[in-house]
Amino acid sequence: MPHTSDPFLLQLLVIFVWAKIFGEVFEQMSLPAVLGEILAGVILGPYATAFVFPTPAVHSISELGAIFLLFSVGLETPPDELIKVGRTSLGVALAGMVVPFALGFGFIILHGSPAKEATFVATAMVATSVGITARVMGDLQVLHTRAAKIILAAAVFDDILGMVLLAVVAGLAATSGVQWVQLGVLSAEAIGFALFMIFFAPRVIHRMRGRMQYMSMRDAPLILALAICLGLSVAAQKIGMAAIVGAFFAGIAFAEYAPEWELRPRVGAITEFLTPFFFFVMGAQLNLAAFSRETMRTAAIISVLAILSKVIGCGLPMLREGWLTALKVGVGMTPRGEVGLIVALIGLNAKMISESSYAVVLIMIAVTTVFAPPILRILFHKVPGFAASETVVAAE
Amino acid sequence: MPHTSDPFLLQLLVIFVWAKIFGEVFEQMSLPAVLGEILAGVILGPYATAFVFPTPAVHSISELGAIFLLFSVGLETPPDELIKVGRTSLGVALAGMVVPFALGFGFIILHGSPAKEATFVATAMVATSVGITARVMGDLQVLHTRAAKIILAAAVFDDILGMVLLAVVAGLAATSGVQWVQLGVLSAEAIGFALFMIFFAPRVIHRMRGRMQYMSMRDAPLILALAICLGLSVAAQKIGMAAIVGAFFAGIAFAEYAPEWELRPRVGAITEFLTPFFFFVMGAQLNLAAFSRETMRTAAIISVLAILSKVIGCGLPMLREGWLTALKVGVGMTPRGEVGLIVALIGLNAKMISESSYAVVLIMIAVTTVFAPPILRILFHKVPGFAASETVVAAE
Repeated sequence: MPHTSDPFLLQLLVIFVWAKIFGEVFEQMSLPAVLGEILAGVILGPYATAFVFPTPAVHSISELGAIFLLFSVGLETPPDELIKVGRTSLGVALAGMVVPFALGFGFIILHGSPAKEATFVATAMVATSVGITARVMGDLQVLHTRAAKIILAAAVFDDILGMVLLAVVAGLAATSGVQWVQLGVLSAEAIGFALFMIFFAPRVIHRMRGRMQYMSMRDAPLILALAICLGLSVAAQKIGMAAIVGAFFAGIAFAEYAPEWELRPRVGAITEFLTPFFFFVMGAQLNLAAFSRETMRTAAIISVLAILSKVIGCGLPMLREGWLTALKVGVGMTPRGEVGLIVALIGLNAKMISESSYAVVLIMIAVTTVFAPPILRILFHKVPGFAASETVVAAE
Repeated sequence: MPHTSDPFLLQLLVIFVWAKIFGEVFEQMSLPAVLGEILAGVILGPYATAFVFPTPAVHSISELGAIFLLFSVGLETPPDELIKVGRTSLGVALAGMVVPFALGFGFIILHGSPAKEATFVATAMVATSVGITARVMGDLQVLHTRAAKIILAAAVFDDILGMVLLAVVAGLAATSGVQWVQLGVLSAEAIGFALFMIFFAPRVIHRMRGRMQYMSMRDAPLILALAICLGLSVAAQKIGMAAIVGAFFAGIAFAEYAPEWELRPRVGAITEFLTPFFFFVMGAQLNLAAFSRETMRTAAIISVLAILSKVIGCGLPMLREGWLTALKVGVGMTPRGEVGLIVALIGLNAKMISESSYAVVLIMIAVTTVFAPPILRILFHKVPGFAASETVVAAE
């Protein structure tokens, strides 16, 4: 710890500072910070300038970053709000899952790649990352509109469906060849896990809450939340799912008590510290040599499919409410993000997808994320009678 | 990340949960939680039940835990409050540093150990850990008394002096034999570092604060604070000091703006998550085979010296205010904690102290920590005119 300069701390410093600088530059250009953090990893990582070779300790930190990222997302998802939200949002989420998966899977198979590779790429195309859409709608002060409310609710269902799908796909990665029995068991486990965390876990936490007053520990709720986040991450791994699935459901279980226990700002601080390492390491694993003309062509097609499939899949169930609302919801659900990135990374590490497919997914995520905001601005400004002066409290 | 059960996450879970359970049990017995967390490491670690062998990744996490621990301590130390506090506290802190160091050093040398070993053990006897005293005084509602105010202020000076001493000692660990020139350079660096962070750094941050409004990033102040914490930790290492010295001074620089930016609860959450690993790993490095009768005898003598030297050193400058106040201040300054533990761990890792000296320091810290609270309760209840009903806002 003393006198010798420690490569671990130095790497943490370099990665954190550069990721944040790139993130800030991207935000200044009205682009999402996460793309900047990934780009920092691409540029400084081993495949480009080779300025930083992330050590195993930094990889461990980045793994923890992914877990806290999904834990934070879960904390924003109170289960009782989900239960009382209308069927419209569930329909939007379901169709918005099936269409991108089908189009992505079909294209990659036709392209001549194995079924496993197609499964991973298609799964990475499923999960919407609503953060960017939410921020754009907040800026435009349209969070009170019906389209905005449906987008936000559908995105929550979409997260849960994405997690179930990820659980199944991560299970796939462990087997050689598609084993239908195992696939069925995993799907059942994942759905069971989700239902348990939504309907039952909050009651368990409610009972613990009553007993917590007898504890001497400062910050007992935060410590309990952290322990359960780690516990469910390990449990998810043990039954063959990705650790982040457990972390996400741990977040859901605590979401109802998050305001009372001030969990969001405090878990958010841990996430703020740890996730830049996750995104940086993600970028550092992008092999620039994989960018052949062929890869770029595939990436372009997959990006177009990713956009069209959400616009169609999420728009169709909304058509009866008019094409403008349908289009808003479709475009609003287009951006992909963390979950897609994690799916791609799991696939890469398990050698289930090639380096070029990894590049394709990263490009697709960047394209969908950059595409949505300007289109959303145009669509929402067409709202008749839109009152720019109306003050709306941001939903997220 | 998927399907294979990852020893890293499992270790994090096991260590976090057991450290917190032991901590909670200790708090229920009115003992400090940190002793419980260390004991968890002793019991579950390689030298006892061998249930957990901390991996390199967990060691990295524990190192980060020490850094955030000291960063949090620094955040509680606004420099302008230090500057305006009276000379009494500085005198108490100085005498409370010189006397324990001299007694500890003298005893270990007389005992026949080398000068370096004596230096480390003596340094570990210096730094007061005022947290326990502050909590006891808060419980007794005596934080408004002059003795309490002097203790709290002196403890802050004591932290800074301890850091300067640690910087010098960590430099010592890097050299073979005491090199006076290098020692002088290191002392000058450490004092310069301290003065810079107290007088100059807050102004730099004040100027940054004005510019921060132009940044798009969410949570820019938190990110700036984290970056500077990592940056000064690395800088401290580069000039030959311990990383935690840099983290501590980074905390001091931000202490003034901590309330405005809500840094304390949020950095506190990161600390809450990471420090149990530090204390656990610390306990796991205690070789139980080092507990010979000889070691226990030395530990007993060092513990008595640690108590007497603070009571005398910190009490003497207070004698003119009456023996009761002097005694309160002396006993209040007795508990040792994190800084002493870190000194011992640096010494152990640099092979500057033996495993039995490491055990001696851990025992001394446990004894001083357990000794102070009951005595303080007795002393403060003797205060004439003590009004138990008076409500006082806790200073920490």
